[in-house]
Amino acid sequence: MARLRVGIAGLGRLGARHARMLATRVADAELVAACSPVGEERAWAAQTLGVGANYATYAELLAHPGLDAVVLVTPTTEHAGQIIHALAAGKHVFSEKPTSLSLEDCLRVEEAAARHAGQVVLIGYVRRFDPSYRDAFDKVSHGVIGVPFMVRSHTLDKNDPSGFFVRFAPTSGGIFLDMSVHDIDAARWFLGSAKPVRAFATGTIAVHEGLAACGDLDNGIAVVEFEGGRFACLQASRTMAHGHESMTEVVGTDGRLTIGGNPRLTRVDVADAHGVRNECTPTFYERFEDAFAAELNAFVAAVLHDGPLPVTLRDATEATRIGIAIQESVRTKSAVTL
Amino acid sequence: MARLRVGIAGLGRLGARHARMLATRVADAELVAACSPVGEERAWAAQTLGVGANYATYAELLAHPGLDAVVLVTPTTEHAGQIIHALAAGKHVFSEKPTSLSLEDCLRVEEAAARHAGQVVLIGYVRRFDPSYRDAFDKVSHGVIGVPFMVRSHTLDKNDPSGFFVRFAPTSGGIFLDMSVHDIDAARWFLGSAKPVRAFATGTIAVHEGLAACGDLDNGIAVVEFEGGRFACLQASRTMAHGHESMTEVVGTDGRLTIGGNPRLTRVDVADAHGVRNECTPTFYERFEDAFAAELNAFVAAVLHDGPLPVTLRDATEATRIGIAIQESVRTKSAVTL
Amino acid sequence: MARLRVGIAGLGRLGARHARMLATRVADAELVAACSPVGEERAWAAQTLGVGANYATYAELLAHPGLDAVVLVTPTTEHAGQIIHALAAGKHVFSEKPTSLSLEDCLRVEEAAARHAGQVVLIGYVRRFDPSYRDAFDKVSHGVIGVPFMVRSHTLDKNDPSGFFVRFAPTSGGIFLDMSVHDIDAARWFLGSAKPVRAFATGTIAVHEGLAACGDLDNGIAVVEFEGGRFACLQASRTMAHGHESMTEVVGTDGRLTIGGNPRLTRVDVADAHGVRNECTPTFYERFEDAFAAELNAFVAAVLHDGPLPVTLRDATEATRIGIAIQESVRTKSAVTL
Amino acid sequence: MARLRVGIAGLGRLGARHARMLATRVADAELVAACSPVGEERAWAAQTLGVGANYATYAELLAHPGLDAVVLVTPTTEHAGQIIHALAAGKHVFSEKPTSLSLEDCLRVEEAAARHAGQVVLIGYVRRFDPSYRDAFDKVSHGVIGVPFMVRSHTLDKNDPSGFFVRFAPTSGGIFLDMSVHDIDAARWFLGSAKPVRAFATGTIAVHEGLAACGDLDNGIAVVEFEGGRFACLQASRTMAHGHESMTEVVGTDGRLTIGGNPRLTRVDVADAHGVRNECTPTFYERFEDAFAAELNAFVAAVLHDGPLPVTLRDATEATRIGIAIQESVRTKSAVTL
Repeated sequence: MARLRVGIAGLGRLGARHARMLATRVADAELVAACSPVGEERAWAAQTLGVGANYATYAELLAHPGLDAVVLVTPTTEHAGQIIHALAAGKHVFSEKPTSLSLEDCLRVEEAAARHAGQVVLIGYVRRFDPSYRDAFDKVSHGVIGVPFMVRSHTLDKNDPSGFFVRFAPTSGGIFLDMSVHDIDAARWFLGSAKPVRAFATGTIAVHEGLAACGDLDNGIAVVEFEGGRFACLQASRTMAHGHESMTEVVGTDGRLTIGGNPRLTRVDVADAHGVRNECTPTFYERFEDAFAAELNAFVAAVLHDGPLPVTLRDATEATRIGIAIQESVRTKSAVTL
Repeated sequence: MARLRVGIAGLGRLGARHARMLATRVADAELVAACSPVGEERAWAAQTLGVGANYATYAELLAHPGLDAVVLVTPTTEHAGQIIHALAAGKHVFSEKPTSLSLEDCLRVEEAAARHAGQVVLIGYVRRFDPSYRDAFDKVSHGVIGVPFMVRSHTLDKNDPSGFFVRFAPTSGGIFLDMSVHDIDAARWFLGSAKPVRAFATGTIAVHEGLAACGDLDNGIAVVEFEGGRFACLQASRTMAHGHESMTEVVGTDGRLTIGGNPRLTRVDVADAHGVRNECTPTFYERFEDAFAAELNAFVAAVLHDGPLPVTLRDATEATRIGIAIQESVRTKSAVTL
Repeated sequence: MARLRVGIAGLGRLGARHARMLATRVADAELVAACSPVGEERAWAAQTLGVGANYATYAELLAHPGLDAVVLVTPTTEHAGQIIHALAAGKHVFSEKPTSLSLEDCLRVEEAAARHAGQVVLIGYVRRFDPSYRDAFDKVSHGVIGVPFMVRSHTLDKNDPSGFFVRFAPTSGGIFLDMSVHDIDAARWFLGSAKPVRAFATGTIAVHEGLAACGDLDNGIAVVEFEGGRFACLQASRTMAHGHESMTEVVGTDGRLTIGGNPRLTRVDVADAHGVRNECTPTFYERFEDAFAAELNAFVAAVLHDGPLPVTLRDATEATRIGIAIQESVRTKSAVTL
Repeated sequence: MARLRVGIAGLGRLGARHARMLATRVADAELVAACSPVGEERAWAAQTLGVGANYATYAELLAHPGLDAVVLVTPTTEHAGQIIHALAAGKHVFSEKPTSLSLEDCLRVEEAAARHAGQVVLIGYVRRFDPSYRDAFDKVSHGVIGVPFMVRSHTLDKNDPSGFFVRFAPTSGGIFLDMSVHDIDAARWFLGSAKPVRAFATGTIAVHEGLAACGDLDNGIAVVEFEGGRFACLQASRTMAHGHESMTEVVGTDGRLTIGGNPRLTRVDVADAHGVRNECTPTFYERFEDAFAAELNAFVAAVLHDGPLPVTLRDATEATRIGIAIQESVRTKSAVTL
């Protein structure tokens, strides 16, 4: 049983974590190469993770002898082009979400993948691999809540008082395209991939005035209607005080499931002068670390053993498409028909 | 210190509870009279509560000698007219919410009250008197969460499999006017009575097909935008499996408050084959019983001692006005400008 | 239906609250008289509650014309004698717990009550009237957790940094007799009034060194064994940081009930820099205010309508008897046979 | 950086899980050999995990060429002898807890380890490696709750209606030695390795009558006093309906920490006809899976890099010693001096 020879592109904050995960918790993979334009990051991969080949460019990585697959943790603007190049080079591809901020690029990726049907392409909608989300999906599948018809979902980030992210706002696609695609994907997942028909959204700049220059928000709410009387309500925030919170609630005719109602960091409760309390996951990474491991293992298993994958390129395209409609609603201050 | 002589109009389900409350937990009031078109209800008031005078008509109640105030627990369609009559008769008035489903009637009530400035008129937006809502409002007032800019609020009722309520749907004004006015009022309260500018809503019939005949829904979601970048998201449901749930979340620049995140009935947790669980309030009454007591006591104190009241007729009118806009959005499938 | 004419003895912190409760939430009672050695307290009762007759001595209170019943909120050392006097004077008696710190006095009270079988005597083991405790007891009675065999229960008080209570320690009977009698009574209640056979206890002075002088503790734990393989574990503390907590857990062959696992003050959760948290009941009064109302109403109903009472004088005697054995175990550092 | 060559002894339920963990989540270890008397288990290791050498006896495993370390997941009665043999053979040793049910054997292991000071010996008190327990310990170390003086801790197992475990009761050492050693170790950890001075325990057979034959219990409670006014209260049960629960509460002069107050399996809450609920960890393995990974990684790091270990052989011996005293208290029905 040979291990999958994987190369990683991107060794930034999340890239470094994915690299470490590949090196320590994905037993059927071997992290044989990495690429990063940053010399210090390449040195870190070599020294800390023992990665044998560390390149400055993606082209070099793709050319690494014997490479089976690439893991892309690069800027969103690079995803589509890099996926298509990797497919052309005969590699399997795991890419961080979203496929692209552009619907056309999403479709180009779908077409390229269709031409390389033997190669696996997985976009990292990580909640699909999270034990709690999977438990909820299993419960829905087993009819625990009857017929699901509504999803309420939010992605809330802890406020970064430095406002560092404001610099990247002009290329992020807007708060809903940047953050809510996870919620959109979760809504579609739990509502049976229903066809979206209408979107409405609004929001505000509560804290980071610098966002005004590019028309972005730091807090927002969106409603998406799907065919068959199903609908979703999505909230996004970059200004929470307590930590990162990814919550999804699925309402069915016989009950309701709530995933992540309390974003507790550990199983510890503190009773002190502040009351009874628990600390919260500071970032999405502490929340989804096990899901990231499961996701990479599922990708490797899909390649090696034809293992099942819970999310398709079409799912990823739909998340972008709905996200674009939501952003348009913010601009037009009216409901947008999909 | 004389007690306020109060008469109650309406001895139905909620009316009977208000009557009992007046008789047992409002020390500064004396329930001297009641009216109901139902003979059995009048007999109950006489025998169980010892109410001395029980009339078949509202006009008789208003004419009861020495009556200081009336408490209206009658159908919504009666509220406006009965309030105006009571004012004309020199009585103080407590009326169940809403003032009316008609904006014009709300304004007529406001005008009548302005003409009788010495008389107290209180519309029963009961959450304003609930200890948990008041605790949250105090925290907001003290800056615990910084500047509040968003409210998420829902009113969820336990499903009545008999669908009894479907019969009343044609005159209820629709799910948002019937149920969400409490959430609208809570949103305005926590957002500083901001001026509403736009509303969008949608929903579905998940269970009770009979609602289709009158264009109503059994589940819905609404977004309301206010001036100053503030907004609210409101959910309503008549089909919950676990019980009644009134939840309001207030998001500010420095934190978030959640009122009623878990609608627990008592302080008991059960650990058994179903996991760790708590039972839930079956109806709004178990949830708000203490608030109803506080509300009636506050009304009486406002009359006797000029005690403060946290909700004005203008607040009540605004709840109706926003509710009407939300219902219009459901019909037009587009955002409605207020 | 005449109201019960009640007099209250003791207008201290808890006495004043009971007096106010009698005046406002016990519809079938009339607070006609009070006694207190403190002139200011008598003046408060007259002016704030409108109590017509306010005496300096208990003897005068008992002699008040037409008095039906007394409510004793006096020092524990007075309870037994005052109950016996009231019985001799033909009055019904409600007394705060415990009956006495002395087993002999408890038995004297039982004998006096037996001689006045037509008069109601109720010792205020308030948890028996608390909606959550009653819900748990109903569940146990309906077999929800099978056969109960173990109770874990604690009474924890918020630390008073002033150490005010240390002054009263010499006459309190010790932490277990003072605080844990509620837990002992709860244990007996849920374990079917089983006969106690053995007790063991220990503890420490964690904060209030002044307790050493009288051999008392500020934190302790006790184990009580009952016949039939049943047992209880009781914890007491005077040094909590988060507030007052009364928790009782009942373990049965088919499940477990926990009452008061989180001593939340309201239904509000705060998400802020401290995590997700709720504030706690500062004292037992906020926790049991509704239970105190229910208790006094039950007492009045027992007198007026022969209403049932969930706790007998024998129950109260047993609580004292077990408490004494626990305190003896602390002194002897060994298990004490009952 | 060479990987540690590890052999595992024991491939039963927990052994198989440890083997899989070594093969997939301990990057610095290589599972090169295994031993089991059961042929099917050896075949499983070869086929599923790709273990190259699978022996029938422990002696053969120790003789495996190039082996660096052994992981013992064998019956408790074997631990001490196998640890001593492995040390003599020059191997590092990880053994499941406890060291032994016999104090003499614990001391023999300590002596053997002292003679092989260069070799690592780790007894698997897994809570010391659990993220939540470690978080609590860090908080205690940072003074979050002031000076800790009391620990309440329990290990509760889901009832196995088949009573399978009754067969092993005669050699388990009793419920406290079998289950509560984890709680004893946690108590010592959080109370600064204080010297124990007295123990008292009792319990019952609530469900599994078959335990009577060997004098064991299926539910019990123990109190352990330590020097310096510190104490612990430990509960053990084999008859829970809701799942496995490992809870530890640490009470200090300025606050309280609770680890595992709700043994939730995932982050999912269900709102349905049973109320609001969460499912629970069915066994200790679901609760501590990540801790088992951390524990094995820490063992490997201790060998390869002199990494720190949070638990010593002396700690393990003390857990056994206190456990023996508790069991003696059950037999003698009196407090036992240590």
